[in-house]
Amino acid sequence: MMALGQAARAGAEALRTATAEQRSAAIRAMAGELRAHAGEVLAANARDLASATRLPDRLMLDEPRLAAIADAVETIAGLPDPVGVEIARWERPNGLDIARVRTPIGVIGMIYEARPNVTADAAAICVRSGNAVILRPGSDCLGSARAIHAALARGLERAGLPASVVQIVPTADRAAVGALLSGLGGNLDLVIPRGGRSLVERVQAEARVPVLGHLEGICHTYVHAAADPAMAAAIVRNAKLRRTSICGSTETLLIDRAALPMLPVIAEALVGCELRGDGEAAAMVPMRLATEQDWRTEHLAPILNIRTVSDWREAASHIARYGTGHTEAIVTEERETAEAFLGQVDSAIVLWNASTQFADGGEFGFGAEIGIATGKLHARGPVGPEQLTSFKYVVRGDGQVRP
Amino acid sequence: MMALGQAARAGAEALRTATAEQRSAAIRAMAGELRAHAGEVLAANARDLASATRLPDRLMLDEPRLAAIADAVETIAGLPDPVGVEIARWERPNGLDIARVRTPIGVIGMIYEARPNVTADAAAICVRSGNAVILRPGSDCLGSARAIHAALARGLERAGLPASVVQIVPTADRAAVGALLSGLGGNLDLVIPRGGRSLVERVQAEARVPVLGHLEGICHTYVHAAADPAMAAAIVRNAKLRRTSICGSTETLLIDRAALPMLPVIAEALVGCELRGDGEAAAMVPMRLATEQDWRTEHLAPILNIRTVSDWREAASHIARYGTGHTEAIVTEERETAEAFLGQVDSAIVLWNASTQFADGGEFGFGAEIGIATGKLHARGPVGPEQLTSFKYVVRGDGQVRP
Repeated sequence: MMALGQAARAGAEALRTATAEQRSAAIRAMAGELRAHAGEVLAANARDLASATRLPDRLMLDEPRLAAIADAVETIAGLPDPVGVEIARWERPNGLDIARVRTPIGVIGMIYEARPNVTADAAAICVRSGNAVILRPGSDCLGSARAIHAALARGLERAGLPASVVQIVPTADRAAVGALLSGLGGNLDLVIPRGGRSLVERVQAEARVPVLGHLEGICHTYVHAAADPAMAAAIVRNAKLRRTSICGSTETLLIDRAALPMLPVIAEALVGCELRGDGEAAAMVPMRLATEQDWRTEHLAPILNIRTVSDWREAASHIARYGTGHTEAIVTEERETAEAFLGQVDSAIVLWNASTQFADGGEFGFGAEIGIATGKLHARGPVGPEQLTSFKYVVRGDGQVRP
Repeated sequence: MMALGQAARAGAEALRTATAEQRSAAIRAMAGELRAHAGEVLAANARDLASATRLPDRLMLDEPRLAAIADAVETIAGLPDPVGVEIARWERPNGLDIARVRTPIGVIGMIYEARPNVTADAAAICVRSGNAVILRPGSDCLGSARAIHAALARGLERAGLPASVVQIVPTADRAAVGALLSGLGGNLDLVIPRGGRSLVERVQAEARVPVLGHLEGICHTYVHAAADPAMAAAIVRNAKLRRTSICGSTETLLIDRAALPMLPVIAEALVGCELRGDGEAAAMVPMRLATEQDWRTEHLAPILNIRTVSDWREAASHIARYGTGHTEAIVTEERETAEAFLGQVDSAIVLWNASTQFADGGEFGFGAEIGIATGKLHARGPVGPEQLTSFKYVVRGDGQVRP
């Protein structure tokens, strides 16, 4: 593992000093090799599936899915290269010209579960942002991930970059995670865990390096008294049911007492969704009573909690207590109430009159994302190539000394 | 300690939802109470000095120094409030209007050594950025820090904010640091260590919360063959000798072999400074030979290491090997070489034809700084009020649902 770190550091240095066009060419070559070696990847995936104990759908690859993965990599090759971009520039009264310029972070450790596509996505986003990456896939998808990684490494070498830019932990041994979390002797700058709560919590508890955490999304949609009923129904339906398995799906509907007469319209839009509400909600629409545990649960399933509140402040209090700081929405026609809610609620993403399922780097225009950060340090919300950079100050003078 | 964390969280919430003007008024009141209670602070400082075992100059307060501390706090009251400021705003093709808006981080733990002024600076910068702070001063300045803190707390209360916005660890016990580093049960969002290497390294090794590290500054000034000799002498003199005790002072002069004839001119400008060089430098100007340890030492004293290099690449290699990623300068009249050096060297601050002593938030126009971060995550370089914020995305729609 320590050798992996040293190789990654050398890879990061080669990538940092490469040109934007070299990084783009490398990502295109990675996509090309993925397509050229689809057979090996699908065969490895078939072996993973045969021995898998859980999650077969996420794990399963077929030709269209693999083509989509290669296409996503190709798309990242076309994204603007963030390295060296000036974020800000100003002149001081003494004539010093100060620029804040994006730089890569260095070496990133990516620890994830059984989604083989993350292998390619994470690698491409890291190369785009000038960072070397060490991948640690879940054991269930290890064979698929290794086959994908082999293709990516060939692409890097074909483009003249060292294969050590993208490495994969060679063992399924859990001790490898411990080694990553210890920082590989200074050769790991950031760890990104992507998976269930227990994985993320373990990483946050044990890591000796900075962590870009991606906690579960217990997201809320709040329907205010002055909401348009049809809009409320459409947004709640989309926020809950468009895809129930993504972190931006709404788990709890908060509804003003004065808006309860809209509940039947909303419930009608939620065909196929189990409702669990408080007494007042259940009095409007027959449903099972919600438990304390429901408010704390990321269902990731067609189950919606419903809680009645007095006003936006009570909605915000519920969110502060039960939310995970991910994404929350308000539906209302009253601008003032909307702005109060948007200002007060301290989540990574707050929306007015839009679905929580927009919590996504692609939907934000970032082109791609490696996850959605729920912490407040470094990056928050969707993490795309720009969010995987640091910066430095470049100061140009003509002989200034400090008085 | 856990109660301190809970109180800080409540203080942070009050501060976050206060207005910018309330935060400004609170900082002004803090400065006013500091001035009003100067007698108590100086008396406490005299007791600290009487029992101090080291660092008496940094530790010592007198009326002018205390007035300067209060003035610095007053200045921070006049800085722009970063909370709620839009950093970016764009519209998506579907009409969603996305804004990235600054938010406070939450609760910050500040662990520092025997500089009583940090107590007031850190408190004012945290209030300016909407963050509650828990201060943990070094035991040598504990009495002074407590007296300063008592004044600050009175100021907060006079301005209608809870005193728990700025708290001080009530004990000199080292276990208190351990409690801070454990994160106070989720009520601490960031730790900032400011002090010697052993303090910062302990914090980085033990912290269970994000750390904004401020490592030592082993800064370099590189004199290129095409430097103007007079400018080189003036910059090296200022970079080393203006103040030798600050982290931005130059510890090592790297000089091109072709520039060695300038060395006598430079040495003449360094009256009172001990020179330690390699053989080639010592052949030009008599000096003691530098040891391997010298290249790795932050002298913080009138001692300058001198190393001869072949070109800017060798200078950059020396910096990569021995530097701490803080601040480095190149002196040259050749734009192309300067830009190559500025692009290649991966330190928080890189300067062309200017003194490394400009590494300072005030000199950058930030108004104040809580330190200079040498890590690459979240903030890098001078850390002022803006760098102590996070952000959230505020998304305004008119009923958009995700396809």
